[in-house]
Amino acid sequence: MKSIHQTISMVSLGFALLIFNPALAQVDADSVMIRKIYTQVLKDHTMDQNLRELVYKIGPRISGSAAAEQTVVWAKSVMEGYKPDRVYLQPVTVPRWERGDTERAYFSASGGKSRLDISALGGSIPTDGILQSEVVEVNSWKALADMTDAEIAGKFVFFNRAMDPTEVEVFKAYLKAVDQRSLGAIAAAKRGAVGALIRSLTLSKDNVPHTGAVSYDEKVKKIPAVALSTISADRLSAALKADPRMILSLELKCRLLSPVRSNNVIAEIKGWEFPQEIVTLGAHLDSWDLGQGASDDGTGLVQSMEMLRVFNQLGFRPARTVRVVLYMNEEAGAHGAVEYARQATLNGEKHIAVMESDAGGFAARGFRVEAGSKALKQFRQWAKLFETYKAGDIQLEQRGIDLVPMKNKALALISLDCDDSRLFDIHHSRLDTYDKINPREVAMGAAAMSAMVLLISKYGLQ
Amino acid sequence: MKSIHQTISMVSLGFALLIFNPALAQVDADSVMIRKIYTQVLKDHTMDQNLRELVYKIGPRISGSAAAEQTVVWAKSVMEGYKPDRVYLQPVTVPRWERGDTERAYFSASGGKSRLDISALGGSIPTDGILQSEVVEVNSWKALADMTDAEIAGKFVFFNRAMDPTEVEVFKAYLKAVDQRSLGAIAAAKRGAVGALIRSLTLSKDNVPHTGAVSYDEKVKKIPAVALSTISADRLSAALKADPRMILSLELKCRLLSPVRSNNVIAEIKGWEFPQEIVTLGAHLDSWDLGQGASDDGTGLVQSMEMLRVFNQLGFRPARTVRVVLYMNEEAGAHGAVEYARQATLNGEKHIAVMESDAGGFAARGFRVEAGSKALKQFRQWAKLFETYKAGDIQLEQRGIDLVPMKNKALALISLDCDDSRLFDIHHSRLDTYDKINPREVAMGAAAMSAMVLLISKYGLQ
Repeated sequence: MKSIHQTISMVSLGFALLIFNPALAQVDADSVMIRKIYTQVLKDHTMDQNLRELVYKIGPRISGSAAAEQTVVWAKSVMEGYKPDRVYLQPVTVPRWERGDTERAYFSASGGKSRLDISALGGSIPTDGILQSEVVEVNSWKALADMTDAEIAGKFVFFNRAMDPTEVEVFKAYLKAVDQRSLGAIAAAKRGAVGALIRSLTLSKDNVPHTGAVSYDEKVKKIPAVALSTISADRLSAALKADPRMILSLELKCRLLSPVRSNNVIAEIKGWEFPQEIVTLGAHLDSWDLGQGASDDGTGLVQSMEMLRVFNQLGFRPARTVRVVLYMNEEAGAHGAVEYARQATLNGEKHIAVMESDAGGFAARGFRVEAGSKALKQFRQWAKLFETYKAGDIQLEQRGIDLVPMKNKALALISLDCDDSRLFDIHHSRLDTYDKINPREVAMGAAAMSAMVLLISKYGLQ
Repeated sequence: MKSIHQTISMVSLGFALLIFNPALAQVDADSVMIRKIYTQVLKDHTMDQNLRELVYKIGPRISGSAAAEQTVVWAKSVMEGYKPDRVYLQPVTVPRWERGDTERAYFSASGGKSRLDISALGGSIPTDGILQSEVVEVNSWKALADMTDAEIAGKFVFFNRAMDPTEVEVFKAYLKAVDQRSLGAIAAAKRGAVGALIRSLTLSKDNVPHTGAVSYDEKVKKIPAVALSTISADRLSAALKADPRMILSLELKCRLLSPVRSNNVIAEIKGWEFPQEIVTLGAHLDSWDLGQGASDDGTGLVQSMEMLRVFNQLGFRPARTVRVVLYMNEEAGAHGAVEYARQATLNGEKHIAVMESDAGGFAARGFRVEAGSKALKQFRQWAKLFETYKAGDIQLEQRGIDLVPMKNKALALISLDCDDSRLFDIHHSRLDTYDKINPREVAMGAAAMSAMVLLISKYGLQ
């Protein structure tokens, strides 16, 4: 406890600073306001209640599904409760894919069938009944390129390149391996393969397959594509070493349906000084169909909405217009983000910064920023304000899928950066459930984002 | 991928630096060695296997128990496998306390007994049968001081001050509240109370009581002391508001037994250049009897032992003597750490630094260091080397219970600093189990500690 005497001294000191150093006083005013934001977020449970409502009442919400539409209605309603100037839907047409009721794979081993843990990749075509064939394993693109067409044609290509555990950032290990999942089916089909089997993108050794989007090329034959759990991948690899002519059977009943109308959900607080200049933060409404979409991107959704609640509670009206943009369909083509950027251009909007949270909602370390050197310098100056909260790490990098369509349309693209130790253990799998979430971590990230919106909306960016 | 040309240029550049700037080349050599340490820890699963062996084969291991002695034998055996110069036991006498088979508390509410979730605090005396009395709730020391003896005498004092959720560091919120648990029984007994009921030290709202040591004063009557889950604490508080004369019943069959002989476990690699100068890292062998002691301090144990494995694998012999010290009885008096410091003094040992890991094994952010200004400057210079691994946050603070007896005997007291968002959700409770652990986080912390030992053992401290 400070004595009254000390408190008076500090007030006097603050007053001296106000007279003699307006810049310092400004920093002090910002730090006071940011402290208010953190206090408001940390002492309240509303955001955590929102997340539990989302994952338990709606659950997984793959783009195009009824659950995704429920999420639209829910998010609009929650944000309206925080009294922004406006909440509206932005229509967007999205693809629709269903996993179906059957997905299984096995190979014949001594003593019977050996079942593999698989999940169809999102967007995969089904098999026509049971697809049976030999398997060739590759651990690099070069290994695939070095094979003859005859070695590949009519077989499954098994992409078994593991994520590199020695990368400091697990996210980088993911980025180094994700091309197998996104492009494996095209590369394999070009060489005449009948299916693509992808080692799950996780450092965990377990029996959980991790899905994700597969890309097809309209000029290349589509082939079914599935993720294998890492244990199944190791088992398949061992079985192939024992018997390279071994037959694998795959059955998928997933299907691509007609595209449907869906929506982005947008909330807006008009800026009092520069209403034409827009700062957004957001996350994606859709999730994969496995798990609950708690971490990806339930946490980002509730963190974004929390800014409205906090600004409302603190009676804070920003100088520039602030938007929460909740994008539909990040996981399967980012159609929502593309539409948002298209409308922004059509309407001649001036976007200062677009920010997103899609890194799992774990302990916030700072921000990944793509911006010009002058704006970047501003962020680095602000870093001090976030270091108090362990979130002062500003790195020059673009990470957000939903931000890509706004490249060159906004002065800065910003992603909340979180500790990534745990993300890929659960990512795109049935393990992405509420029990993996820590409300405190989600809160610290939400406060960091709201504080960043405060600064950008107040000062703008160069 | 870098081209060969680029690689040659970089080698030439490196060579130029070697010629013209030995200091830079030195930093480079350190960063190369530290990278080797991280790679060795991250690519290997031994440490995680050690942790699983500890928690599943031995489990909780309260000081003085058979499980604690098994832990001594196990830790010695694991460390011997890593071929240090010497592994030995250091005898220490420790108190022994058992929870017993009964602990229950309830109050009479409309419609019957309302049960409370409780755990006796470690070291608490039992009740003599069922102890029944009224309850007075206090939320501060001042509130207790302001009451008359008549208001307190013969009653339970219910210490219901909650941890402050707005603290940036949860650890600080814990430190601000832990005095209720450690000193509440003494303070209440001085005023004539018959028992102390303590709100669990966690930000979680759940039905899990969190234990921990209670202190007694030989001059003050000992009274039973228990922790209540936060939900039970809220429920009791509400019930007291409805009926301040309500009777609470408590029954505890815990007991304090005779002290027993136990051991610290110490492994040593002799320094090749300054064998008399000692750098230690360590953790505590004992845990509470609830949960598995996975996070507290299983992670610290295996992280400390991992240094021996890594140095052995890399063929690294330090310039100064390096010790792993695994302390017995951190949780109930730190008798092991006291004995270690006593022996160090008796033997006239020269301790450069003592380091510990006892913050849960979560994502490592850096180190808390208590040292003189010159040594602190060295740590801050080294911070750059750790920033690459997100562990460059050096803060001046002393945190480790097991380090206290070495104060003024070593130039630096160092604690691994970890993200503390999750620690107090599980701390000292049945939730402290392996499933809360992330092996990647444990690995990053172990690598940071080994890297710090490398630097101190190479350069010493001023």
